[in-house]
Amino acid sequence: MNDLKRSDFEVNRLGKATLLSPIFKNYAEEAPDKEFIDDSRRIIFDASIEAYNANKESSEDPISFLKAGARKEIYFDPSKTKAAIVTCGGLCPGINNVIRGLVNGLYYRYKVRNIWGIQYGYQGFIPEYGHEMIKLSPDVVKDIHLFGGTILGSSRGRQDISAMVDALERENINILFTIGGDGTLAGNHVINEEIKRRGLKIVTAGIPKTIDNDVNFMTKTFGFDTAFTTAAAVVRDAHNEATGAYNGVAIVKLMGRDSGFIAANAALAMPDVNFVLVPESKFDLHGEKGFLAALKSRVVDRHHALVVVAEGAGQHLFDEGDEVKDKSGNVKHKDIGVFLKDEIGKFFTGEGIEATVKYIDPSYIIRSEVAIPADSVFCNDLALNAVHGAMAGLTDFVVGRWHNQFTYLPIPVATASRKKIDVDGSLWWSVLETTGQPINMTNEKK
Amino acid sequence: MNDLKRSDFEVNRLGKATLLSPIFKNYAEEAPDKEFIDDSRRIIFDASIEAYNANKESSEDPISFLKAGARKEIYFDPSKTKAAIVTCGGLCPGINNVIRGLVNGLYYRYKVRNIWGIQYGYQGFIPEYGHEMIKLSPDVVKDIHLFGGTILGSSRGRQDISAMVDALERENINILFTIGGDGTLAGNHVINEEIKRRGLKIVTAGIPKTIDNDVNFMTKTFGFDTAFTTAAAVVRDAHNEATGAYNGVAIVKLMGRDSGFIAANAALAMPDVNFVLVPESKFDLHGEKGFLAALKSRVVDRHHALVVVAEGAGQHLFDEGDEVKDKSGNVKHKDIGVFLKDEIGKFFTGEGIEATVKYIDPSYIIRSEVAIPADSVFCNDLALNAVHGAMAGLTDFVVGRWHNQFTYLPIPVATASRKKIDVDGSLWWSVLETTGQPINMTNEKK
Amino acid sequence: MNDLKRSDFEVNRLGKATLLSPIFKNYAEEAPDKEFIDDSRRIIFDASIEAYNANKESSEDPISFLKAGARKEIYFDPSKTKAAIVTCGGLCPGINNVIRGLVNGLYYRYKVRNIWGIQYGYQGFIPEYGHEMIKLSPDVVKDIHLFGGTILGSSRGRQDISAMVDALERENINILFTIGGDGTLAGNHVINEEIKRRGLKIVTAGIPKTIDNDVNFMTKTFGFDTAFTTAAAVVRDAHNEATGAYNGVAIVKLMGRDSGFIAANAALAMPDVNFVLVPESKFDLHGEKGFLAALKSRVVDRHHALVVVAEGAGQHLFDEGDEVKDKSGNVKHKDIGVFLKDEIGKFFTGEGIEATVKYIDPSYIIRSEVAIPADSVFCNDLALNAVHGAMAGLTDFVVGRWHNQFTYLPIPVATASRKKIDVDGSLWWSVLETTGQPINMTNEKK
Amino acid sequence: MNDLKRSDFEVNRLGKATLLSPIFKNYAEEAPDKEFIDDSRRIIFDASIEAYNANKESSEDPISFLKAGARKEIYFDPSKTKAAIVTCGGLCPGINNVIRGLVNGLYYRYKVRNIWGIQYGYQGFIPEYGHEMIKLSPDVVKDIHLFGGTILGSSRGRQDISAMVDALERENINILFTIGGDGTLAGNHVINEEIKRRGLKIVTAGIPKTIDNDVNFMTKTFGFDTAFTTAAAVVRDAHNEATGAYNGVAIVKLMGRDSGFIAANAALAMPDVNFVLVPESKFDLHGEKGFLAALKSRVVDRHHALVVVAEGAGQHLFDEGDEVKDKSGNVKHKDIGVFLKDEIGKFFTGEGIEATVKYIDPSYIIRSEVAIPADSVFCNDLALNAVHGAMAGLTDFVVGRWHNQFTYLPIPVATASRKKIDVDGSLWWSVLETTGQPINMTNEKK
Repeated sequence: MNDLKRSDFEVNRLGKATLLSPIFKNYAEEAPDKEFIDDSRRIIFDASIEAYNANKESSEDPISFLKAGARKEIYFDPSKTKAAIVTCGGLCPGINNVIRGLVNGLYYRYKVRNIWGIQYGYQGFIPEYGHEMIKLSPDVVKDIHLFGGTILGSSRGRQDISAMVDALERENINILFTIGGDGTLAGNHVINEEIKRRGLKIVTAGIPKTIDNDVNFMTKTFGFDTAFTTAAAVVRDAHNEATGAYNGVAIVKLMGRDSGFIAANAALAMPDVNFVLVPESKFDLHGEKGFLAALKSRVVDRHHALVVVAEGAGQHLFDEGDEVKDKSGNVKHKDIGVFLKDEIGKFFTGEGIEATVKYIDPSYIIRSEVAIPADSVFCNDLALNAVHGAMAGLTDFVVGRWHNQFTYLPIPVATASRKKIDVDGSLWWSVLETTGQPINMTNEKK
Repeated sequence: MNDLKRSDFEVNRLGKATLLSPIFKNYAEEAPDKEFIDDSRRIIFDASIEAYNANKESSEDPISFLKAGARKEIYFDPSKTKAAIVTCGGLCPGINNVIRGLVNGLYYRYKVRNIWGIQYGYQGFIPEYGHEMIKLSPDVVKDIHLFGGTILGSSRGRQDISAMVDALERENINILFTIGGDGTLAGNHVINEEIKRRGLKIVTAGIPKTIDNDVNFMTKTFGFDTAFTTAAAVVRDAHNEATGAYNGVAIVKLMGRDSGFIAANAALAMPDVNFVLVPESKFDLHGEKGFLAALKSRVVDRHHALVVVAEGAGQHLFDEGDEVKDKSGNVKHKDIGVFLKDEIGKFFTGEGIEATVKYIDPSYIIRSEVAIPADSVFCNDLALNAVHGAMAGLTDFVVGRWHNQFTYLPIPVATASRKKIDVDGSLWWSVLETTGQPINMTNEKK
Repeated sequence: MNDLKRSDFEVNRLGKATLLSPIFKNYAEEAPDKEFIDDSRRIIFDASIEAYNANKESSEDPISFLKAGARKEIYFDPSKTKAAIVTCGGLCPGINNVIRGLVNGLYYRYKVRNIWGIQYGYQGFIPEYGHEMIKLSPDVVKDIHLFGGTILGSSRGRQDISAMVDALERENINILFTIGGDGTLAGNHVINEEIKRRGLKIVTAGIPKTIDNDVNFMTKTFGFDTAFTTAAAVVRDAHNEATGAYNGVAIVKLMGRDSGFIAANAALAMPDVNFVLVPESKFDLHGEKGFLAALKSRVVDRHHALVVVAEGAGQHLFDEGDEVKDKSGNVKHKDIGVFLKDEIGKFFTGEGIEATVKYIDPSYIIRSEVAIPADSVFCNDLALNAVHGAMAGLTDFVVGRWHNQFTYLPIPVATASRKKIDVDGSLWWSVLETTGQPINMTNEKK
Repeated sequence: MNDLKRSDFEVNRLGKATLLSPIFKNYAEEAPDKEFIDDSRRIIFDASIEAYNANKESSEDPISFLKAGARKEIYFDPSKTKAAIVTCGGLCPGINNVIRGLVNGLYYRYKVRNIWGIQYGYQGFIPEYGHEMIKLSPDVVKDIHLFGGTILGSSRGRQDISAMVDALERENINILFTIGGDGTLAGNHVINEEIKRRGLKIVTAGIPKTIDNDVNFMTKTFGFDTAFTTAAAVVRDAHNEATGAYNGVAIVKLMGRDSGFIAANAALAMPDVNFVLVPESKFDLHGEKGFLAALKSRVVDRHHALVVVAEGAGQHLFDEGDEVKDKSGNVKHKDIGVFLKDEIGKFFTGEGIEATVKYIDPSYIIRSEVAIPADSVFCNDLALNAVHGAMAGLTDFVVGRWHNQFTYLPIPVATASRKKIDVDGSLWWSVLETTGQPINMTNEKK
């Protein structure tokens, strides 16, 4: 549980919600039984009977997440509300779907008419860049869910917080929706601190964008399903390349900076893969039990092999001391794909085995893809729930999903640590059994 | 909760599991921390804090589901175990994936070598039909996940229970995996009763197959994601047809006998739809507030309209008294799609409006589709968990998923009632807002 | 050769082209070697050495088609030219691509700025309907090639010719591009006659739209590749349905009013098909050598069968005397698909064979599909060549392709008769061998 | 015309065909009008009326190609014929389709039962490699057209010719079908010389495999349509990446060693591309009129740019003197994609412009793809015609298509030179107009 306390899971609000929601007014007569959610509704983190029984003794409530959804009372007067949307960091399938969902949710459900897109990420707040804000409406976003990418453009890295809040003030923005990753959301939190310091009536809401699916307390993040769907097709292509040559070895590098969810799921969906290498499971390259020995054994036996590697895997194989960070503050990984390709080539040459090594890096192709329908529905729901929370006056929060219900989490909780594959759990277990790879590819004894 | 008692959720077992699982033996040294599940592990049905607090007073445990997964001890000796797989009812994306998962799970995880496919559903048990059993192995099922349909063939309807159990006895089958819908699983339960009566050492395990996603106590059934993915593409085609003609009205009929999940999700994924008609929300055809009046208003205003209708919607519009059932015992619905097409045509003619009505029924195209990667992974997990349960000696159960964990449910619980869209909940709410259709299309006052 | 004379292949022009083309001016300096086409360039119809030798004796030139392409001199002054585009008849993949190609060709290559879309087919010319013309520009058509359907809408049937030419006059339109089928193009020809009669300076150019690929003197029409691509996927689905049931018979009805090109090519691309029924090859239903007997033999032998039928096949099986035409003047065919489904069902029941018959009609799904890239490139080329011809003052012509070169044909030539499958040629031969169906399914002796 | 003489276009035969074809016998009664082709049937190379008129004076026949198709008489007795198939060089969509077509054509049309696959290219003939031959039959190849790659495996480079012919002799192979590129076919020709020298009764037939579509005297080679279809999707992804960043520049490297057909067609199919760089059109990097200046102008103006580069483009930009060849004898190109990425990055930095450069190399993903239906039908036809030619005793030939008819060409003619884009013709013209790129990106005056 990452040393988090129960109280860390409380979402802040700007103030009491006192206005009747247009949704409620709209439906009051025709659908009096429509469900509205209030702040007492929460979803328990651990739904196991063991946790239940353990907790029963305790006087405290179990850890739980605020349930997302439309509130009967809202904080902002729609006719006076100005909302802005910003997209940051690398591309991820579904960004346009989220933008569309936010715009339509604000416009049709709350009658907010003053909606703006900030261009090119946090840069868009900084006058020096000269990026104009774009007026958004249902007409503008009508068909954007049919395209990958982001209509607003994006950029990496934070900008000066004070300048950003100046921009919010100057533009009279009441609600800022941020679609971005870890670094972006952490930035959002700092923006919020500054807002608080200045006593402004501005809320910030985040929709976590991480194609790696590595946000804690969230079953899934948007774009992930599309990502491993696209990756699975590439894995099949790589299988054709591997079997197309005698002693053919195909390597596919997939996204996954700190966790191997895409790699694992793509391999399960297209189970021709023989090795999945992920950050969560350390491996040696050389030595009797190392990866290369296992690979050789496979190639000698079957004359082809298919390797899927997450970009964050095997980082310990590189020399230390020269860590580099990108503009978003992420540690820039050495390219494990290219490294493996070279090492495998050298290894087989050294072993006197004629092997053909092929390397595929489909990252840009995956992240710029159109969201599949399952993601499309999910993005829309995330966006609507972000709108509900923001209109109700909640702030410094992200929207998540847990136990198939949408939730609101404080940003610091969502960014405190990252979700990883449990190498003793059933997902990794399935990977091991599907690939047939050794459980342990290190030379240390467990 | 459908009047179910806590005790109804207990899964039966054939006997105590006393043999050490090959999985455990296989991993004991290399992965001593691997997680094994025992029968005390359960998932609480209602994970809300409200339910938690309400329950706290009570002396009883809350309703919960047995957690699925590999057990350390198993019931059947793999070297002596004979397993059979049967697929029943209509096609659904993912059947081949489930078959593949069962075969590979039995073969690689438990070293069961004696695996057979029953051809053409329950017919395959009846000697008169002359359908041979097919020997299954990883080689046979290697690439079948890349194809829709079922390699075993299927049929509708039950066969004589006694003759079926005779077949199980005659063939010395220990484990019967049934991939089928409501009627099939109910059949499975009756088979189980007969097995018990005869005192045989046979377990039956079900993997619920309903493209409609309407099984209670299960977040999702396999094939559903693929179904609405395929449906969404057809909905877009229909949009092109609707806008391609002046006053063009396109109608897409989708699966959904008792519930409109496919229709609702397809409409949310491809939000060009103007009307979603589902079994859960009654509508009148005629009258001031009826569907045709709303449709006319849309067509006059925008000159095209797109209607998605679930096959079970509007059944009250047909004359009663002539209910027909198909061989599976399902009530055969009148064809609401053709009916609507005719009624809409007549209506516009009557109104003096020249409209072009186009009707699309993509059912066979949807249900015979290849599983998308998300379904592929899901099918594999369902199959593996079915294998774990059956090898452990559990019987008369189905595999499900709840709160993102796999579960085992007694068949009678899973088939007692059907999951439906809550018309006061957030899914239907999203549909109403996305389509802009009237909340209430009946002439009665609510 | 359909009794056409050499002189029938001469394309009319409105007058001599005397203005220097902007393309020539634009490229004169940088690309002096660019190829421009003049009216002496023609493509020979029959490129066989036999025809060559036969012709050598003759004093006449062989039959040939005017070569399409940019002319150095043009007829219309771009700055004063007004062009209009109209789309008629049923949907076909690629219509939007053609519209885009026309607009961009006029705009970028010839600097024509005055381009309009006529809405809803020929109706758009008739004031009573009240359809506004739409101003078109590269911005408007930017992304439309990514969508199926037609952004202009369509309608069937001719309107009053005089009223249509009135509209052309009233709006000062100089060039009318018509995207439509047989009936539409014939209409275009009549419009042209009226234009000539009135002595107007208006040219008409057609881009033949027939998903059936049945235009004479043209290797291929746009949308056809996409059509059989989509059809092939449905054929595979049908294969899954056929094999999914014992004695499963799946029937797919595909487009093909007078010719079976889509059916034949879909069956060759997805060669699981057992019977292809097309208009060009008559068959009996009953009798020793009839289709049903052949089908029974297949089903008894293999327990499943897959039938692909073109919509115009087997029309002789219906009672005559009640021919109906649609608004475009096409004979409305009885539904051979539904008919076959019923007849097959009755037949097997009569034979005491329990068969499951499934019927799929994917027509709307196919014709509303997005053009595949091969079609996309083709549509663009067709459009550009239509623009080149029209700007050069050619009139009453359609754009075609022959021997992999683009051509201009007089409309009467292109609509005089229809292209059909030669049942003694290699395409039908391939179909017979791929399906294994009897050559002759009539009871007459050949 | 590459200095080829008329006589170069004569295809060799092993001897007179004297046996009645099983196809003829099979169809004689039921289809007496079926068309059979004899060696007098030829297709004229140049079907223009200009060439016709020029030739009329001459006493010689025009250059023409032998028409492919089933002959009434064949050379080999099917019951005694042994055929072998080998696939060489890099992957290309459709190889499995060709294999399937060959096997089914031999088996069903000619009743040849003795069909073998050579594994891993020409290596498969060399005993030292130990690759077993694989027995092929319709059952083995039933579903392989649904997969990319090659079921036979492949390798690059020639093997010892004498050893290869030894293998043909040793195995009593009568017909060798080779699916491969330039180098492979040239190898095939040399094998044929050796066969002639030894006086063996063996024919060799080639099916040209070049994803680049660069074979002379052939409109299209198999796999090309699939290649640019797949490439077009990646181009769209790259567009999303380019627009997703401020001053985003995306580069897609596509196949095209000596010709830019894939690059050109992908850009036309997905016309978001701003620059297409191909081997046929030289460009400077630097200087006032160089590519980088043009790119800068685009980026400054629109803030994003999309570049498609064929792998063989810009080779003059690399230092000479260190030419390297791969095992197939192809000159190994320096990686123009990586080079451009680096140069563009340096250039913008030097110009003080913050640009984001993204580089995509989808080659393996494209070449391992499943053939699209249009390719599927084409592959099947190529294969059947190869079978017809070989059974008739033709040798040292490849199958092609010209003027939409299948042809047979002597291998030396097909490999004498390569097809290239005519930079003064309509394809390149379309590319220039679609992209808006300068006609001339060199600093020399034209």
